[in-house]
Amino acid sequence: MVVRFLFDFISPYSYVAWHRVQVIAARHGRTVEPVPVLFAGFLRAHGTKGPAEVPAKRAYVFKDAARSARLAGVSFGLPPEHPFNPLLALRVAGEPMDEEARRALITALFHAVWGGGGPGVTDPATVAAIASGVGLDGAALIAAAGGEPAKTRLRAATDAAIAAGVFGVPTMLVDGELFWGNDSLDHVERFLAGEDPA
Amino acid sequence: MVVRFLFDFISPYSYVAWHRVQVIAARHGRTVEPVPVLFAGFLRAHGTKGPAEVPAKRAYVFKDAARSARLAGVSFGLPPEHPFNPLLALRVAGEPMDEEARRALITALFHAVWGGGGPGVTDPATVAAIASGVGLDGAALIAAAGGEPAKTRLRAATDAAIAAGVFGVPTMLVDGELFWGNDSLDHVERFLAGEDPA
Repeated sequence: MVVRFLFDFISPYSYVAWHRVQVIAARHGRTVEPVPVLFAGFLRAHGTKGPAEVPAKRAYVFKDAARSARLAGVSFGLPPEHPFNPLLALRVAGEPMDEEARRALITALFHAVWGGGGPGVTDPATVAAIASGVGLDGAALIAAAGGEPAKTRLRAATDAAIAAGVFGVPTMLVDGELFWGNDSLDHVERFLAGEDPA
Repeated sequence: MVVRFLFDFISPYSYVAWHRVQVIAARHGRTVEPVPVLFAGFLRAHGTKGPAEVPAKRAYVFKDAARSARLAGVSFGLPPEHPFNPLLALRVAGEPMDEEARRALITALFHAVWGGGGPGVTDPATVAAIASGVGLDGAALIAAAGGEPAKTRLRAATDAAIAAGVFGVPTMLVDGELFWGNDSLDHVERFLAGEDPA
């Protein structure tokens, strides 16, 4: 009875959808299971470009994501740099930990990137402070994120997603059905309500 | 006071949006000005792949477009072939003609592709029959579509769109603001209503 939520901190639509999917899942008695994945791995596997690599699309995407954030009632601003290397934050978010703590950590990391005026998530000391701020052992998480298990975990999650037909973020997997993008959350909600079964 | 609607018959989301944009524009006292453009030209200009060229995305897009069509209350089915060459239909749709006739022609051509069980729009005799079916001179339109003015017109519209920052279809241009995708029509409606000015 979970909604699997595949995301990358690089993606502004993942940020907006992270807030919305929890509200939608809760309305239908579901829990969200967040799965950090490397969006760049999808692009590599499919031999295509991300929206941020097409200048015209890049400008539009930031504007549209801001609109979507306003509509969802979440604060929004551009991170200090973009694109940036999301590996550290993704590996930290994937470490073994209590699931409620993980949700708080992901929310805080996303906020540091897309909440507006935040520090981003590329600096280890910053990421450690963010983790400690939600009650986790920041220093231990940073140390673990540099180890082979954390690297293998992210690579395996990304590869498994590609094998399952995932090509973008955010992706919601619900009862074997794949939904792509913040825009698809209305479809997710109808699917959970049994209003649109296919 | 127009909403410019840039589209390609190759795109299922253009089909769904073509129906929705007219309802939305009418609600706000606007007229839709359809502009046929060659989506493949955008991909070439930006050096990227279309959704139909990424197998995982292709499967998803047809499913999601079907969902969006159901939600919009328009019939939907896959065309006899896809991808297909949309040049003839795009050139015919861009010929000089009465604007009400153009809207009827575009609706009929879209229906022949995405309405379900239709003949597609690659065969000249079929396209001529579709045009005649909405009261136009089908044979004359097919003849004109093979001429240089029709080819130049489509190329110029596509190039002008690229120069204006357009990268996909459907694109709605409203008072200088660009909106991309069927999913963006809710944003278009809020923009027209003055509820989300940026």
